[in-house]
Amino acid sequence: MSTSEQAQLLVDRVDGVVTLTLNRPDQFNALTEELLAQLQSSLDVLAQDADLRCVVLAAAGRAFCAGHDLKQMRAASDHDYYVRLFARCGRVMQSLVALPVPVIAKVHGMATAAGCQLVASCDLAIAADTAKFAVSGINVGLFCSTPAVALSRNVPAKKAFEMLMTGRFISSSEAVDNGLINQAVAPGQLDATVAALVQTICAKSPVAVRTGKAMYYRQRSMGLADAYDYAGGVMAQNMMAQDVAEGIDAFTQKRPPVWKGC
Amino acid sequence: MSTSEQAQLLVDRVDGVVTLTLNRPDQFNALTEELLAQLQSSLDVLAQDADLRCVVLAAAGRAFCAGHDLKQMRAASDHDYYVRLFARCGRVMQSLVALPVPVIAKVHGMATAAGCQLVASCDLAIAADTAKFAVSGINVGLFCSTPAVALSRNVPAKKAFEMLMTGRFISSSEAVDNGLINQAVAPGQLDATVAALVQTICAKSPVAVRTGKAMYYRQRSMGLADAYDYAGGVMAQNMMAQDVAEGIDAFTQKRPPVWKGC
Amino acid sequence: MSTSEQAQLLVDRVDGVVTLTLNRPDQFNALTEELLAQLQSSLDVLAQDADLRCVVLAAAGRAFCAGHDLKQMRAASDHDYYVRLFARCGRVMQSLVALPVPVIAKVHGMATAAGCQLVASCDLAIAADTAKFAVSGINVGLFCSTPAVALSRNVPAKKAFEMLMTGRFISSSEAVDNGLINQAVAPGQLDATVAALVQTICAKSPVAVRTGKAMYYRQRSMGLADAYDYAGGVMAQNMMAQDVAEGIDAFTQKRPPVWKGC
Repeated sequence: MSTSEQAQLLVDRVDGVVTLTLNRPDQFNALTEELLAQLQSSLDVLAQDADLRCVVLAAAGRAFCAGHDLKQMRAASDHDYYVRLFARCGRVMQSLVALPVPVIAKVHGMATAAGCQLVASCDLAIAADTAKFAVSGINVGLFCSTPAVALSRNVPAKKAFEMLMTGRFISSSEAVDNGLINQAVAPGQLDATVAALVQTICAKSPVAVRTGKAMYYRQRSMGLADAYDYAGGVMAQNMMAQDVAEGIDAFTQKRPPVWKGC
Repeated sequence: MSTSEQAQLLVDRVDGVVTLTLNRPDQFNALTEELLAQLQSSLDVLAQDADLRCVVLAAAGRAFCAGHDLKQMRAASDHDYYVRLFARCGRVMQSLVALPVPVIAKVHGMATAAGCQLVASCDLAIAADTAKFAVSGINVGLFCSTPAVALSRNVPAKKAFEMLMTGRFISSSEAVDNGLINQAVAPGQLDATVAALVQTICAKSPVAVRTGKAMYYRQRSMGLADAYDYAGGVMAQNMMAQDVAEGIDAFTQKRPPVWKGC
Repeated sequence: MSTSEQAQLLVDRVDGVVTLTLNRPDQFNALTEELLAQLQSSLDVLAQDADLRCVVLAAAGRAFCAGHDLKQMRAASDHDYYVRLFARCGRVMQSLVALPVPVIAKVHGMATAAGCQLVASCDLAIAADTAKFAVSGINVGLFCSTPAVALSRNVPAKKAFEMLMTGRFISSSEAVDNGLINQAVAPGQLDATVAALVQTICAKSPVAVRTGKAMYYRQRSMGLADAYDYAGGVMAQNMMAQDVAEGIDAFTQKRPPVWKGC
C-alpha cells in the first residue's frame, strides 16, 4: 500500500487493543474502494493475531461514516464493477463478525447507509447522544440492500423496514431502543465509556472471549436442539482450559484471576 | 362479484396510492369469507399494477378489525371448510408481504385476532393512541395459530407468547415498544401522519422502493453469507438504474430528483 | 431417588398447577447434577400428565438460581463428564420448552448463568423489581455458551452479546425492556401477580393452551409459507374441538365458557 492509501485508515495498537480509525474526515469517511481494501487488509491481519484482545472502530472528523463514496460510485458505470464493489463491502462487514475478538463501534457522529451498516455489523456499539443514524440510500434511488442484511439482524422488523424505506434519521436514543446500539452517552463521556468497556473485556479470559464470540454467532442460525448440542460441546471444551480452574479458584478465594490460557 | 359483496371492501385510488377500507363497520369489520375473497382479489390486481406506489389498509366504523367472523365460523362444522378458510386467510396475509410496494396499516381502533394479524402482516403500521391490540382467540378456545406466525415475526418471544396465551389487550404505546407498530399518534393526527408517510414513500424512486421491499423479506430467512451474496447482487443491479444516476446528481446539486426509471 | 436428593427440588401441586421450587437456598440454588436430574425427572412426569394446566418455576432463599455448582464442576476434571453435564443441562432447558403447558418463571432474586438461562427458557417470566440477571460465566473464564442459546432467542443481538461478554448484571426493568422477562413488580406483589397469571391461563381451554404452546415454538423456525401451511392446519384442527363451539356460544351469550374438551 502506498502512503496516501495508508492514510485513509489509521491503525493504532496499545497492548492487545487495536483502534481502527476511518480517516477521510473531509469526506465524512465515505468508504472508497481504497478504504474498504485497507479495512479488509487490516481485518485479515488482525484475524491471525493471537495476542489481539479487542478492536475499536472509530472515525475522524465530524461524521462517523457517510457510507459508500457516491462520487466514486457515480463515476463508474459497469455492472461488474458494482458487483465487485458490493462483494468487497459485504466481505468487510462479515470480517467484523468473523474476527475472533469483540469489535466495538465508537460512534461520535452521523452514521449513514454503509456507515450505519458498519455500526450494525460490530458486536457492540456506543454512541454519543448527538449521533444520528440512517440507511438513506433510498433518497438517491439506491435501496440500502446490503445494510438491510446487518440492520434487520439487529432491529425489529417494522422499525428496520421504516428506516430503509424512508431514509429518516434516528437519534442515538431511538437506536438504543431499537437495538442498533448498546448505549448512548454524552459526547464528553464517549471516550471514557468505550475505554471502560474495552477494559472490561480485556480483564476477561482470552480463551473465554474468543470461544464465546465464535459460538455466539454460529449457534444463532441453528434450530434449538442443534444449538444446544453445539453449545454443550463448546462449553465442555471451554471447561478444560486452565483459565476456568484459575477463574473458579480466584472467585472462591475472592481474588482477581491470573489467566493462564488453554 | 355482486354489489353487496363489493361493499365489504372499499377500494379508493388517488394517483399511485390505493386505500383498501374494510367496510363492515357494524360487525367490527370481521373477516367473512367474502371479505377475505375481496381482499385477495384486490391484492392480486394490485400486484400486477406497475403504477402502484403505496397501499394503505384502513377500516370503517369504530373498530379496525375483530378477526374472523365468529358467527360464520360457528355455522360451519366440517374440517375441510376450516382448512380452506385458514388457507385463504393465510394467503391474504402473505399477499400483503408479497405485494411489490409498501403496505401501511392505518389503525384507528381495536385490532383483534386476525385483525391484529393484518397489522402485523403490513410492512408499516401507524395507530391512534386509543387503539388496542389483542390476539384473543384463546378466549373462545381457539388459539390464534395463524396470527402467531405474523406476530412472532414482529414481537419479542415472551411478549408474543403472553399476548397469545392470555388474550389480553395491549395499548398502542405497548405495541410501539413491542415492535408491533411503528408509531402511535393522537386520533386527530392519524390521517395526517399516514398521509405524510405515504408522501415520503411516494417521493422515493419506484425502482428503489420495489427492489427494496422484495429483497428485505427474501434476505431475512437466509444465513449471513447467503444474504450478503444476494443483497450485493441486488444492489449492483439497482446501481444500473437511471434513477440512481439522477438521484446522486440531484443530491450533489442539492435539488430534488426527477425519477426516470430503470 | 433418596430423601436427601428429593429435597433439592420441591414439587407442589394444587389442582392442575404444579410449582417446582429449587431448594438449595444456602447454595443460591446452584444446579448440581442431582438438582438437574430431579428437574428432568419431574419434567418427564409432567409431560405425560393430561390434567396439568400450568407450571411455576420458583426458588427458595434469597437467590433465584446462581447457575451450575462451581464447586462440583471444579472437583471434576474429565472432558466426558463435562459433555454429559452440559447435555443434561441442555435437556432440562429444552424440556421446559417442550412441556405441553406454559411454564412461568417466578424470579424473586438473582438469576445468573444457567439460572438466567432457566428464566430465558421459560415461556413467561415475572420478576421482583429487585431481582438481577447476568450471564456471568465469562468472569470465571467460562463463556455462558448454553445460556447464550436461550438468551439470544429472547434478547436483541447486541444486548445479548453485551451481557455474555461483560457478565454485568441487569435490573428487572432492563430485563423487561430487553425481552428477557414479561414484567417486573414490587417484591410484595410477586406472589399475587404470578397467581393472577396462572389463574388467567387456567381459565382458558386446555385444548387451546396445549395446541398453542406446541405450535408457537414449532412455527418459529419455519419460513413464512411453511409456517402458514402448518398453522392453518393446526387451526382447522383446533376448530373441531367442542371447546370452540362452547367458547363462541359463551362469547355470543355473554357468559363464561364451560370447557368440554376436544
